[in-house]
Amino acid sequence: MRTSIATVSLSGSLTEKLTAASRAGFDGVEIFENDLLASRLAPEEVRERCADLGLSIDLYQPMRDIEGVPEEEFGRNLRRARHKFEVMRRLGAGTVLVCSSVHPLAVDDDDLAARQLSRLADMAQEFGVRVAYEALAWGRHVSTYDHAWQIVERADHPALGTCLDSFHILSRASDPKGIEDIPGEKIFFLQLADAPLLAMDVLQWSRHYRCFPGQGGFDVAGLVGHVLRAGYDGPLSLEVFNDVFRQAEAGPTAVDAHRSLLVLQEALGLADLPGAVVPTGVAFAELVTPDAEPVSEVLGALGFARTARHRSKPVDLWQQGEARVLVNTGPAARREGTGLAAIGLESPDPAGAARRAEALLAPVLPRRRAADDVPLDAVAAPDGTELFFCATGWPELPDWRGDFEDLRHTATDSGVMRVDHLALVQPWHHFDEAALFHRSVLGLSAQESVDVADPYGLLRSRAVTNADGSVRIALSVGAAPSDDTVHAQHIALATDDVVAAARRFLAAGGRLLPIPANYYDDLAARFEFTDGELETYRELGILYDRDAHGEFRHCYTRTVGRVFFELVQRDGGHRGYGAQNAPVRLAAQHLTGG
Amino acid sequence: MRTSIATVSLSGSLTEKLTAASRAGFDGVEIFENDLLASRLAPEEVRERCADLGLSIDLYQPMRDIEGVPEEEFGRNLRRARHKFEVMRRLGAGTVLVCSSVHPLAVDDDDLAARQLSRLADMAQEFGVRVAYEALAWGRHVSTYDHAWQIVERADHPALGTCLDSFHILSRASDPKGIEDIPGEKIFFLQLADAPLLAMDVLQWSRHYRCFPGQGGFDVAGLVGHVLRAGYDGPLSLEVFNDVFRQAEAGPTAVDAHRSLLVLQEALGLADLPGAVVPTGVAFAELVTPDAEPVSEVLGALGFARTARHRSKPVDLWQQGEARVLVNTGPAARREGTGLAAIGLESPDPAGAARRAEALLAPVLPRRRAADDVPLDAVAAPDGTELFFCATGWPELPDWRGDFEDLRHTATDSGVMRVDHLALVQPWHHFDEAALFHRSVLGLSAQESVDVADPYGLLRSRAVTNADGSVRIALSVGAAPSDDTVHAQHIALATDDVVAAARRFLAAGGRLLPIPANYYDDLAARFEFTDGELETYRELGILYDRDAHGEFRHCYTRTVGRVFFELVQRDGGHRGYGAQNAPVRLAAQHLTGG
Repeated sequence: MRTSIATVSLSGSLTEKLTAASRAGFDGVEIFENDLLASRLAPEEVRERCADLGLSIDLYQPMRDIEGVPEEEFGRNLRRARHKFEVMRRLGAGTVLVCSSVHPLAVDDDDLAARQLSRLADMAQEFGVRVAYEALAWGRHVSTYDHAWQIVERADHPALGTCLDSFHILSRASDPKGIEDIPGEKIFFLQLADAPLLAMDVLQWSRHYRCFPGQGGFDVAGLVGHVLRAGYDGPLSLEVFNDVFRQAEAGPTAVDAHRSLLVLQEALGLADLPGAVVPTGVAFAELVTPDAEPVSEVLGALGFARTARHRSKPVDLWQQGEARVLVNTGPAARREGTGLAAIGLESPDPAGAARRAEALLAPVLPRRRAADDVPLDAVAAPDGTELFFCATGWPELPDWRGDFEDLRHTATDSGVMRVDHLALVQPWHHFDEAALFHRSVLGLSAQESVDVADPYGLLRSRAVTNADGSVRIALSVGAAPSDDTVHAQHIALATDDVVAAARRFLAAGGRLLPIPANYYDDLAARFEFTDGELETYRELGILYDRDAHGEFRHCYTRTVGRVFFELVQRDGGHRGYGAQNAPVRLAAQHLTGG
Repeated sequence: MRTSIATVSLSGSLTEKLTAASRAGFDGVEIFENDLLASRLAPEEVRERCADLGLSIDLYQPMRDIEGVPEEEFGRNLRRARHKFEVMRRLGAGTVLVCSSVHPLAVDDDDLAARQLSRLADMAQEFGVRVAYEALAWGRHVSTYDHAWQIVERADHPALGTCLDSFHILSRASDPKGIEDIPGEKIFFLQLADAPLLAMDVLQWSRHYRCFPGQGGFDVAGLVGHVLRAGYDGPLSLEVFNDVFRQAEAGPTAVDAHRSLLVLQEALGLADLPGAVVPTGVAFAELVTPDAEPVSEVLGALGFARTARHRSKPVDLWQQGEARVLVNTGPAARREGTGLAAIGLESPDPAGAARRAEALLAPVLPRRRAADDVPLDAVAAPDGTELFFCATGWPELPDWRGDFEDLRHTATDSGVMRVDHLALVQPWHHFDEAALFHRSVLGLSAQESVDVADPYGLLRSRAVTNADGSVRIALSVGAAPSDDTVHAQHIALATDDVVAAARRFLAAGGRLLPIPANYYDDLAARFEFTDGELETYRELGILYDRDAHGEFRHCYTRTVGRVFFELVQRDGGHRGYGAQNAPVRLAAQHLTGG
């Protein structure tokens, strides 16, 4: 289906918005009136610009407080409308959105509303314009889609139809099934938005918290299904008012927006995308660093051995059990300090995984390959992390380790078995997109979002995982756009005995994050422990949590650059990440400077 | 009365919080448990630190899910409580907050709740601790203050009393009058918070949007009145969960917090502060600049003349009518670029105004005076703007112009009469404080806060004024902590003919901000104008608005550094600031780079 986006959903000047929409692959736009008013381009120039960009102008919006008002007021409204229809003619916009009235003088009289809308449609027809009448969820007398449709039906005018907006319908918990009773050709437009399920004033909810389909709690796809069964064949158009998107760069927001519509169409069987290939494990985590020494020291103390070296690049492979860490001192590394730059994901079909990622607008990474390097598919996640699709040790698929030369070093067995999870800091403006990306592109499941108190602001954190927990990625975002929350980026290593692993690490010269004694007094109040258990945790700095699924014990190394390591012992199927302990960990990191 | 603040209301480590509370003048603190857990200080050390800082520990908080639960669960709760009472003994904290249960197993049985709380109080008594039981607004079975009191009354235990929290009471719109029926000695504690009136989930409202008394919409003073009439003589304590304060520096937040309690006590007749001296006009606006030339050009084109020069400092006085602008090229100026640094406010009692400001914790500015300079009282507003209290031309009061030497230049009469308003950008973390500061310290009235769409994010704006509108200050804040929104800082000049003033400005070589033609097409749709009127506005770049009170016409100069000027014509008592036009103005400023 054709896709469209309202200019109000993107930041910047009108021309920036149009360019971003076009580049992200949208077919059309809704022009939000204020964006036109603030633009230097005359309506004719906007029309040309859109044509150059391959965008149709699917809707001009909005007209407000038109109907159900006293005749004198309505006369002024018609005068205003004539000016707007003239602007639409210059723009080449064929449909105008009319929102149900919130005017203080509006009366509850469907017949009057229908007659006035009909007169408006008469005038619109002279300009070749269609009027799409929509019920605002907070409309004074008309606030449900079926009521708006009754008025349109009563007016029975060829230039008057209805506009459906998923937010206005689903925020009121209206049953969307009745949409199927509306003749498809009378549904002039369909606006889509999702939203988190919040108990708040619906106007504020609508104006500040809408999000793209799949990022909130509404069944937007279900609603679209009803609209399609009614016979609607217009565009799927996103109208999203969101305080965060207002500040974000238009380009990435438009890409996230278009991805949400691709996923929506796939859910409805309308888009033929390459199927999701769910990753089955973590092949490696890649650190970039200008100086391999500090990272190597920590890895060495953790029992890792430098087992191989890339044949053509300054990249070392450190390994213990199935946990692999690449340490890259290449040119990119020297610019940015020590950080987690890439993740290798085990995939049963690396090429298929990359095809799906590309179809869902993930940038495919150009590979700086030497002639005989193993082919390796990679894309960029929204936060810039490089995702490599790997098939480590699978017969008949290329193995990325083929590019590495074995150094014949052997790891000390210090109990690290594999990567438990990776924690990535997300750009503030794209936190919701990150979860949608990992869900739709990689086929992972998103867990609930949790708030974590840092001494200097609230963080939000959300994990995405595969079914058996062999891939877990914890996404977190700081309290404000300016917040770098560097401490959240880390590599958690799974062990079946965190006490032994911590002791070995300390014996090998490693340094763990010190945890305050008060934390252990609180643990003693909350849980009963076997003799000596709590004392051991206190001595080593091990944190503890327990839920219905089992126990979680963990400790942290000191931070190197922007990265630290965690040792994690999960028992009995515990599915958490120690969120309960995160405030203590964050405070400790602030106190020690990492 | 004694004042206290919960550590959760301030950002940082526990020691940072304690230091900030002490410096701002609080007598005590509530220790929030998580702050203690995350601290390196042992409870005894916290006790000592507080004693050194002159702070009592008025409350330890919170204990949750204690009462109304099955016996086995309650046994675990008592075990947990014993640990906490032991910690409180080490801390020297005499009262613990127990919140009404939200436990899934809690039953609706007041008798059980009373018996269990009584058993808890038995144990507390052994440790010399009092238990203050509080109804959470979202408590499972106990959610109102009178219900909590009934349970306390039923338990009839000397170590068990109630804690009242203004948020929990007023968010549920409970009638606080019934508080007077509680014996004062059974009100063990009083927690105060205000909040904006939001229609949202009460738990989220409480956890993220509380604010200091006087910053929200609750009648906190009225509630405290009831509590005092009941005979309560404990501290007034602030417990404010707020996402913004969590990120702000603890020091200024603590000062804002303490000021709110001083104002509250004044409203209740409990504090004897110097009375407010409401300013009666704007004596001057002071620009600092490293280079006087660009600002002087704009002032000259606006018809201002350089009429005087400070005798001992590099400060020029520019004047036209009653509008005065100081241009300061002193050392501070050279560091910070061109900006609006100070405001002179006409005051019938400058010394009294300064005394009140000082009593309300506004920093008194040290004056770098020469020996024979006129004494001039000044304080700093929360945004750092210097406020001078002046008595221009008043007999028997020193006139600040006495420090200036007349240059015998005369202004062209270009129709500027006085300063209409001053627009100041507020630090993101202290927007709500700014309005409270201007209201309480200066005796100005705050208007409603409005959202303004900038192309790159939403701004919020709020004006404070005196009764006759001769002092108007528009406070605005950007979309995010990192947002500098430089364009919002400006000096608006009143004229009774903005068209003539704009023409003179252009004729004198001034440059006005160009406004897009589309804006005027929209004006034509919205309003009817006399012949040629709209064309004139379009030609000059004049913006227009109208409300029930009259008309508002205005235009903008180009920006110099971080400041621009506005020419404003108000007719018929219009009270706005052109908020409707602000998005167009902001977009135009982004397009032209000011």
